[in-house]
Amino acid sequence: MAASIKRIGILTGGGDCPGLNAAIRAVVKAGIGIHRLEIYGIETGFEGLIKKQARPLTLEDVRGIVNKGGTILGATRHHNPFQYQEKIGEETRTADRSRTVLQHASELGLDALVVLGGDGTLTIAERLWQMGLPLVAIPKTIDNDLPGTDVSIGFNTAVITAMEALDKLHTTAESHHRVMIVELMGNKAGWIGLESGIAGGADVILIPEVPFNIEKACEKIIERKQRGQPFSMVVVSEGARAIGHEEVYVDPRSRRLGGISHNVAEEIERRTGLESRVLVLGHLQRGGSPISFDRVLASRFGVHALGLILQRDFGKMVAFRKAEVISIPIREATAGLNLVDPNGDLALTAEALGISLGR
Amino acid sequence: MAASIKRIGILTGGGDCPGLNAAIRAVVKAGIGIHRLEIYGIETGFEGLIKKQARPLTLEDVRGIVNKGGTILGATRHHNPFQYQEKIGEETRTADRSRTVLQHASELGLDALVVLGGDGTLTIAERLWQMGLPLVAIPKTIDNDLPGTDVSIGFNTAVITAMEALDKLHTTAESHHRVMIVELMGNKAGWIGLESGIAGGADVILIPEVPFNIEKACEKIIERKQRGQPFSMVVVSEGARAIGHEEVYVDPRSRRLGGISHNVAEEIERRTGLESRVLVLGHLQRGGSPISFDRVLASRFGVHALGLILQRDFGKMVAFRKAEVISIPIREATAGLNLVDPNGDLALTAEALGISLGR
Amino acid sequence: MAASIKRIGILTGGGDCPGLNAAIRAVVKAGIGIHRLEIYGIETGFEGLIKKQARPLTLEDVRGIVNKGGTILGATRHHNPFQYQEKIGEETRTADRSRTVLQHASELGLDALVVLGGDGTLTIAERLWQMGLPLVAIPKTIDNDLPGTDVSIGFNTAVITAMEALDKLHTTAESHHRVMIVELMGNKAGWIGLESGIAGGADVILIPEVPFNIEKACEKIIERKQRGQPFSMVVVSEGARAIGHEEVYVDPRSRRLGGISHNVAEEIERRTGLESRVLVLGHLQRGGSPISFDRVLASRFGVHALGLILQRDFGKMVAFRKAEVISIPIREATAGLNLVDPNGDLALTAEALGISLGR
Amino acid sequence: MAASIKRIGILTGGGDCPGLNAAIRAVVKAGIGIHRLEIYGIETGFEGLIKKQARPLTLEDVRGIVNKGGTILGATRHHNPFQYQEKIGEETRTADRSRTVLQHASELGLDALVVLGGDGTLTIAERLWQMGLPLVAIPKTIDNDLPGTDVSIGFNTAVITAMEALDKLHTTAESHHRVMIVELMGNKAGWIGLESGIAGGADVILIPEVPFNIEKACEKIIERKQRGQPFSMVVVSEGARAIGHEEVYVDPRSRRLGGISHNVAEEIERRTGLESRVLVLGHLQRGGSPISFDRVLASRFGVHALGLILQRDFGKMVAFRKAEVISIPIREATAGLNLVDPNGDLALTAEALGISLGR
Repeated sequence: MAASIKRIGILTGGGDCPGLNAAIRAVVKAGIGIHRLEIYGIETGFEGLIKKQARPLTLEDVRGIVNKGGTILGATRHHNPFQYQEKIGEETRTADRSRTVLQHASELGLDALVVLGGDGTLTIAERLWQMGLPLVAIPKTIDNDLPGTDVSIGFNTAVITAMEALDKLHTTAESHHRVMIVELMGNKAGWIGLESGIAGGADVILIPEVPFNIEKACEKIIERKQRGQPFSMVVVSEGARAIGHEEVYVDPRSRRLGGISHNVAEEIERRTGLESRVLVLGHLQRGGSPISFDRVLASRFGVHALGLILQRDFGKMVAFRKAEVISIPIREATAGLNLVDPNGDLALTAEALGISLGR
Repeated sequence: MAASIKRIGILTGGGDCPGLNAAIRAVVKAGIGIHRLEIYGIETGFEGLIKKQARPLTLEDVRGIVNKGGTILGATRHHNPFQYQEKIGEETRTADRSRTVLQHASELGLDALVVLGGDGTLTIAERLWQMGLPLVAIPKTIDNDLPGTDVSIGFNTAVITAMEALDKLHTTAESHHRVMIVELMGNKAGWIGLESGIAGGADVILIPEVPFNIEKACEKIIERKQRGQPFSMVVVSEGARAIGHEEVYVDPRSRRLGGISHNVAEEIERRTGLESRVLVLGHLQRGGSPISFDRVLASRFGVHALGLILQRDFGKMVAFRKAEVISIPIREATAGLNLVDPNGDLALTAEALGISLGR
Repeated sequence: MAASIKRIGILTGGGDCPGLNAAIRAVVKAGIGIHRLEIYGIETGFEGLIKKQARPLTLEDVRGIVNKGGTILGATRHHNPFQYQEKIGEETRTADRSRTVLQHASELGLDALVVLGGDGTLTIAERLWQMGLPLVAIPKTIDNDLPGTDVSIGFNTAVITAMEALDKLHTTAESHHRVMIVELMGNKAGWIGLESGIAGGADVILIPEVPFNIEKACEKIIERKQRGQPFSMVVVSEGARAIGHEEVYVDPRSRRLGGISHNVAEEIERRTGLESRVLVLGHLQRGGSPISFDRVLASRFGVHALGLILQRDFGKMVAFRKAEVISIPIREATAGLNLVDPNGDLALTAEALGISLGR
Repeated sequence: MAASIKRIGILTGGGDCPGLNAAIRAVVKAGIGIHRLEIYGIETGFEGLIKKQARPLTLEDVRGIVNKGGTILGATRHHNPFQYQEKIGEETRTADRSRTVLQHASELGLDALVVLGGDGTLTIAERLWQMGLPLVAIPKTIDNDLPGTDVSIGFNTAVITAMEALDKLHTTAESHHRVMIVELMGNKAGWIGLESGIAGGADVILIPEVPFNIEKACEKIIERKQRGQPFSMVVVSEGARAIGHEEVYVDPRSRRLGGISHNVAEEIERRTGLESRVLVLGHLQRGGSPISFDRVLASRFGVHALGLILQRDFGKMVAFRKAEVISIPIREATAGLNLVDPNGDLALTAEALGISLGR
């Protein structure tokens, strides 16, 4: 018979988002308060297991964090143990440190692991689980591109941040007869762009799933100008691309400067004769206090994940489906992406409202 | 063959909530902009059809209202045509004016009606539809107590408003070693209380679905005091009641003063020896700009309702299920209420986090 | 020659407000980081000196608190050492414990004290300073009723909270053709009511400094109704009173239930025939994250207070005048109150905008 | 005897900011409601007088705009009648159209003009006043760089927007061990940067008035890293410049991409070895609903400006000094700029809190 669960580790991988702390808190409060477990916080994702950096979390550690953005455990995008980059003197070497992860988890006495992450982190988790590391996963992603769950931690807060920015820019665009181009997150999936664009009264929304024709987008802006509304709001997902282009031409400095939106702005100015301004919302979308939806979702996910562990139902990811929390095999969440259906209800709602998707 | 749809009426009944204007806007933008229909705005619910108060809505009328609370059409709780109260001189008489509604709808040339409402309004709509008025419904309710849809317009914004109040009160409760009792909306259903309480770090949550034992609730507060946390946050739904009481004793002035929460406060002070303060959040929960979730939901509902009308698929309510917009017979939404399951996932999540439900 | 300053105590007295933590943080950061002093945090106002409850504050203690409401030191209204209420067994006895305060301050090795407080706390501080306790004061009050400074910590955040509530209630009042009565803080001074009322589009504002004639107030509401605006927003300071009444009749339960506003509501309903609703904003006005103005003001006050101490310039209160931080004798701040001038610029601005002050 | 004032024009020039509508509303409400004047709204600054585009404003036009950003009159930076750029066919010609302004003002029957503007617009107004156009001015500027008034419309709202962005970015910077560089408005004056930086917990603030040494700035970041805080928040005013540089080298695309902050980011990465990210907050700072401070200030300015006109006290600007609204000759507001004193109280407060100004 399997030994009972006594000590659990928890880590957050990849980019941070609002709601991670609420999930950590739920695991700690339910784990210690109800089930008398020990919970170990592992630092900066799987890197903390490679470097054996972990500490016991107390109820005091999670007091007052339900409404804090970020993660008290730290996070990094560079924590893949299968391709871990180590500095040896001046050199950087890539090594497979997955065995180290399992060994350190064992040395730390961890009976199981809760992994909070998106696509990248969950793929790592799935492989480690195949190697024998007992774990369950909690989905988080600003972009909402994980399949298997209707929604992940962080998405709804990011949409509100984007919507509030659009609300703010609306008045200044209108006063100055300008086109405001707002670049939002969404490399493969246009959920943030589409939802915040509908909510924020955008006139044009360009998303990765609908390759755009710049001429079509400009038609909308020109039509508005002719109707006496010489201003427009244009939302551009960072991963949007023109029809027929694998990748849009992007200035080499673009990683820091913001990419596609500047090209779009130039084209719009040229074709419509209207002054245009770009705002790259960037990391603001990761920040801030999670809204109630994400706090509740994260709390439910945390409690549910703990339940899976206590039943030794490993290799699973908690998921939100049909307004219920369920669990699915992690691999279902890493097979493909949850993308906007170009002919689905949400995209067609946008067009019914008169929004151009540039097609 | 049925004549084609040319003119549609739209009305909002019952209490207002954030998101109504976003739905009205969606119907008008899609109705005029895409389908070249005429849309008539009917004033203050079904009362506008009794009094024949309606006006054509233009695209200009719905400009800039996606982020406005309330309803540009006006709303009232006293618009039931089956029991309509009319003032004749000094006297008030109750009359059945349902025939008048049908007659005026016909005289206004309305081929169909979009009805936004909650439980009460939808029950009226269902009866009128049985009498031959072609209509479709869009669900809205702060309390989220409509069955048949996972969520209705207004709920998620109200939860955020409640959560923000809890966030604000937390620091002052902590600084002053007080018990803060916050009375929230929810006459039959405790959704607002439970979700905002989990999100806002409540220590006790009393909802209608879980009759409470005040002693159990106070145990939690005393336990916190003994652990060196001489302050607590208590959320009370307006419809919460003590075990064994059909209705809690409520001061006759309570309708204006706030009800149950004052009794709860007195009991807590008496049993815990801690100073307690009451805040009745009241109409703040109906107000404000809708969050992105409600703006998008309302937009989708509006477009979908229009689609039903164009297909002459009357007697239906649009609904949000499994993250998709569908339609169901209105009567499914008025048969019973959508209540919190006392032993369901959400209630158990609260208890796993150490929150007392007073049981 | 006087010994140099090495150890400083800091305390917060009276009701809490947003910005206290920002001031504490400034004293600690500048005190430790720049001047290498020790800073002792004293718990719950002067009570902490009676009970000798104090602890050294570290830079770590003040990390991340600039945007937190409340006070990390705790606060209470019952900390007057000249009339201190002590429980001896079942009995409560009032004693003068001011000597104890001086003795404990000496035993704790405090070379000086920073006192954050309003009217009540500053009066205590002035007396203790006369008795030989070296201290400087920082003004804080939601009500902004301290003379000698243009503004105190907490006021501007409270005004925004009140304004946001008015913004939210506006749409629901308009949709339902109701009169919304909002009771705001301000026992002697109507600053919160007047500023948030102007900002939030109130139609009637009743403040303590302008005794009101309910008939005059109702004239405005009736005039609006006749112009086709059958809704109004009425702001009532908790200390507002009718002409000729020393104190308005208030229900004995009023301390908890909210006072004057319910009487006002009844009168308005009776005289205008419009449904009216009351919201008592209460402790929400004390809560929340301070706005930038209060964070900056508190930071400047903290640094300035420390400067006074290092120059041994005791018995002074820092003050904000003409956009500069200065210092004045504490007694100037406790002689009388800073009240709205009924014929001053602010009150006349309100009336020029068509707002009735009920006169 | 001078003819009495009957018709007033009002215009907004330069970039928009929150609070303009509140001022327009105050002039209209007091002008029509109290003084029975006619108020003409002039479109897009002085351009509206060149093109004779103006319309009577009604009480209905200003309903519900007190909390709206932007300006209902429109604004443009290209409205200088002394150097007006006109398109003649394909050509652009610069002409002096100041006589046209006076003539059209006369033809429109305007007895006086209210001009809302910053440095540029007020300079134009002063010249037109010298030529005989009767006018008074109301100061507005995000940057707060107008002398003669303690504060102008728009500044305090912009500071809150910047502070909220810093609050949001803080958690993500901390979670990811990054340096976040936030570029804020402030071409000549660093008020937004300094105030929001103090409020938002910045570690380094670079403003135009204090030419910076990048090495000094990096010392602070490295010191934090060594103390176990491998993340920092850096605020950079758009007009900040390194010591000895008239102008910092800026990429030619910088007008659209954001300027100095990218250079600062590169230097910081190189010198500290920490990953750094840039956010250019841009037009977000102009947008949004004005906070209560700006709504009240704008209302007072509007009413006061009207009073000056009725007394025929032209050529003046209303100003906020020592918490009172006064008036000064416009030329006092256009002689020089209101800059941060590098050795004044605010700058020294920042340094006392441990913030590096890069010197």
